[in-house]
Amino acid sequence: MAYTLRELAAVAQATMQGNAESEIDAVAPLDRAGARHIAYCASGHYRSLIPESTAGALVLLPEDADLFPGNALLCHDPRTAFARIANLLHPRETVVPGRHPSAVIDPSALVSESASIGPQAVIEAEAVIESGVVVGPGVVVGARCVIGANTRLEARAVIMHDCLIGKRCVISPGAVIGGEGFGYVREQDGHWLVVPQLGRVVIGDDVDVGANTTIDRGALGDTVIGEGVKLDNLIQIAHNVKIGDNTAMAGCVGVAGSAVIGKRCMIAGGVGIMGHITVGDDVEVTAMSFLKSSVDGPGRFSSSLPATSADIWARNVGRFRHFDQLARRLRRAEQTIKQILSGGKH
Amino acid sequence: MAYTLRELAAVAQATMQGNAESEIDAVAPLDRAGARHIAYCASGHYRSLIPESTAGALVLLPEDADLFPGNALLCHDPRTAFARIANLLHPRETVVPGRHPSAVIDPSALVSESASIGPQAVIEAEAVIESGVVVGPGVVVGARCVIGANTRLEARAVIMHDCLIGKRCVISPGAVIGGEGFGYVREQDGHWLVVPQLGRVVIGDDVDVGANTTIDRGALGDTVIGEGVKLDNLIQIAHNVKIGDNTAMAGCVGVAGSAVIGKRCMIAGGVGIMGHITVGDDVEVTAMSFLKSSVDGPGRFSSSLPATSADIWARNVGRFRHFDQLARRLRRAEQTIKQILSGGKH
Amino acid sequence: MAYTLRELAAVAQATMQGNAESEIDAVAPLDRAGARHIAYCASGHYRSLIPESTAGALVLLPEDADLFPGNALLCHDPRTAFARIANLLHPRETVVPGRHPSAVIDPSALVSESASIGPQAVIEAEAVIESGVVVGPGVVVGARCVIGANTRLEARAVIMHDCLIGKRCVISPGAVIGGEGFGYVREQDGHWLVVPQLGRVVIGDDVDVGANTTIDRGALGDTVIGEGVKLDNLIQIAHNVKIGDNTAMAGCVGVAGSAVIGKRCMIAGGVGIMGHITVGDDVEVTAMSFLKSSVDGPGRFSSSLPATSADIWARNVGRFRHFDQLARRLRRAEQTIKQILSGGKH
Repeated sequence: MAYTLRELAAVAQATMQGNAESEIDAVAPLDRAGARHIAYCASGHYRSLIPESTAGALVLLPEDADLFPGNALLCHDPRTAFARIANLLHPRETVVPGRHPSAVIDPSALVSESASIGPQAVIEAEAVIESGVVVGPGVVVGARCVIGANTRLEARAVIMHDCLIGKRCVISPGAVIGGEGFGYVREQDGHWLVVPQLGRVVIGDDVDVGANTTIDRGALGDTVIGEGVKLDNLIQIAHNVKIGDNTAMAGCVGVAGSAVIGKRCMIAGGVGIMGHITVGDDVEVTAMSFLKSSVDGPGRFSSSLPATSADIWARNVGRFRHFDQLARRLRRAEQTIKQILSGGKH
Repeated sequence: MAYTLRELAAVAQATMQGNAESEIDAVAPLDRAGARHIAYCASGHYRSLIPESTAGALVLLPEDADLFPGNALLCHDPRTAFARIANLLHPRETVVPGRHPSAVIDPSALVSESASIGPQAVIEAEAVIESGVVVGPGVVVGARCVIGANTRLEARAVIMHDCLIGKRCVISPGAVIGGEGFGYVREQDGHWLVVPQLGRVVIGDDVDVGANTTIDRGALGDTVIGEGVKLDNLIQIAHNVKIGDNTAMAGCVGVAGSAVIGKRCMIAGGVGIMGHITVGDDVEVTAMSFLKSSVDGPGRFSSSLPATSADIWARNVGRFRHFDQLARRLRRAEQTIKQILSGGKH
Repeated sequence: MAYTLRELAAVAQATMQGNAESEIDAVAPLDRAGARHIAYCASGHYRSLIPESTAGALVLLPEDADLFPGNALLCHDPRTAFARIANLLHPRETVVPGRHPSAVIDPSALVSESASIGPQAVIEAEAVIESGVVVGPGVVVGARCVIGANTRLEARAVIMHDCLIGKRCVISPGAVIGGEGFGYVREQDGHWLVVPQLGRVVIGDDVDVGANTTIDRGALGDTVIGEGVKLDNLIQIAHNVKIGDNTAMAGCVGVAGSAVIGKRCMIAGGVGIMGHITVGDDVEVTAMSFLKSSVDGPGRFSSSLPATSADIWARNVGRFRHFDQLARRLRRAEQTIKQILSGGKH
């Protein structure tokens, strides 16, 4: 559906330049946008593409306005403005209510008339599927789960029994919510005795969970994911973890059991977070780091090493193995120098 | 179902304090347990909560007995005792035998009368499903697999053809057992020629496999998971790996091809284990470490770096890049000092 | 099906030694091969097993020919020769065309007569399934996807809407192609605004994707996987990544958004690749390394630290925390030494 530049300016809270009545159908990349497309440029890196753009309109920083002779929307945060415009021009498909005949729905489940239940889905006893929910193909919703209004469970996602998912969430394909936590005690003969995992996963509103990400149910209490949390793909959240509102984690992060993570944290890809630690609000952890002990926020933490040429690396690693001795040698050298300087006997 | 304190004391091998006939229904966390709940405290960290607990009974260390006026079970390992009690009070749901009409079961498969086959499951030709097995919703069991008695395959788990799973195993949702190993040889023009993966995955009794964990089939021989092994979520086990009995691995571990891992090892989260190495019995590897070469057990190994403030980290990393030169400079300084001390000509 | 040694020599481009008419049924490991099996030895490590092998034939290096009195094929790359022979002796099962009655196929989908659609599969509107494709049990193919000829989608793989998969690909069980990329902008109040993910995943011919691996669709443009790329299990490929032809990645690799990776790269297990960087052709990255910035190829890069005894490690890590100060102390010691040598006043 088309919108005028004027309408887009309103949603983007931007200043207009050019023809307010020109119509835009879709968003597009800066270098491939056509006459009915809108694109954006927020950084110097792509600035040189602005003058040549054939877009019907651009979202630009005010200081770049002169670079483009066509229609433009000017604002201080073109990326956010563009995201608002993209959500307007490309809304999610309307939910078509109904139950695919191949879906298996327990008679005791409460499924809203306005929900869409896809082919091969399974909804177990006493589950509650609220209004506007989309249950994708092959999804499994366990017994007594509650899926909040307008949430989407994508293809083959699994929600195990008794878990609660908030409203407007997206659970991506293959994600597993509510698997049993990894809880064992070791017997003296080396065997592991399982500790029953009796808690749930409780997920707030507006949470997104990535593809094949796993969130284990709590052992005694619950695993709790706050409102607005965004989790990328292939993340592991262990039992009894708590994640504060609006925290975001990139792909391949692992969070060990009972860690408590604050609000608005940003955890980059590949990070490991130790169990039983507390992470304050507004903490950032850089990619591939290992957060081993509790930290207060705000703050930015890191322990990753960037790759270099493998032969240089091998030499440095060789030194690292003897780091402690090397530091001791330096200490001795300093002491000797001090003796020399003091004129003491050598 | 309720048990008396006397019955719980017997299963926990603990000393009783208080009313032996008081009844307990369920386990609960120390700070939320009610009159018919039992909780535990094993560590100093939570000791301050003991006196205020409203639990019907507590499992405590003998030295903490005086802190609690109510019913208590005293023993030297409250966590293990509590795990035994929790297993008694919260047994797994009884398996309801039967085959859901939506399941697709090949006529040549041998499915025990006492097994439970869930909705949308697929059981392929000549597979064997032994007594008491639970095949969850949407599970796929490939041709000629054998699933041992009382094993549970949870929602959407996939067991590819010809794999053997022992008795009393739990394969968590989304786990993939028996995918093809990553085996290729490189042609001179850069193309990869696939090496057929002709082995199986053979899993012993009492093995637990976590959600979305993957275990590849062997190339020529088999991938072998010993008895009592416990694997957490999102673990990758490559082709021809052997894992010894009762070894446990936490989430996000990756084990490369043909690694041989001993018994009773404890591999913490995020660890990488190199291919073709041998790891002895009773080896521990700390979280986020990289085990690159063979090690004997028992022993504890590590290579992880804990995160610190990002700006301090950046300075240290900058130094690391020149570690080799720095070590050479120290060597020269030491030699010069020696020359000075020996009164040699400078 | 049996082949003569002569036939195997032809496919392996090897020199024969022994009885050209002897028949071989199957490949086997060197130490377990019987009279109708063929095995190989390419490395010194297993050379001692050659003389005792009971195999019907061996593939050997020419210099090892004298070690084995039986039938042999001699060539300079026994592993590649063996792979060719294994592909001949163990071809994939013939595809049996047809549609399982439990599969749900949208009437607007175009499914080739020669394709095989497994039980519980879902094929959505306007999807195209070309000739010889195998759609495994429980697979989901989204609307408007195109699956190229002779590709296999294994059990429970998910291909989200509008994605293109080339010919002769293998998408392993549980893999998710075309999940939504992790794209958000942060509002001033800390909430995350989703950026619609409007691109596709475009996968070339002869690509293999491992079990539970995830490849996200592009935000505006596409995520592109080149021809002949091989991806192992549990890999995360973020939105708008480009991977060049014949690049291979081992398990648990994570590639962040918009990274551009060259041709014929070899990325070992557990590697993290930063977003928005460019990696040249023929780049190798060693296991568990973090490629943080762009590199040209060819070249080999590393940043992993091998595990050592945990107590030695702890001492070295302690030193690392003060690396910057230590380097400064060395600098001062060097300067003092220079002053001493120059006879300046101390």
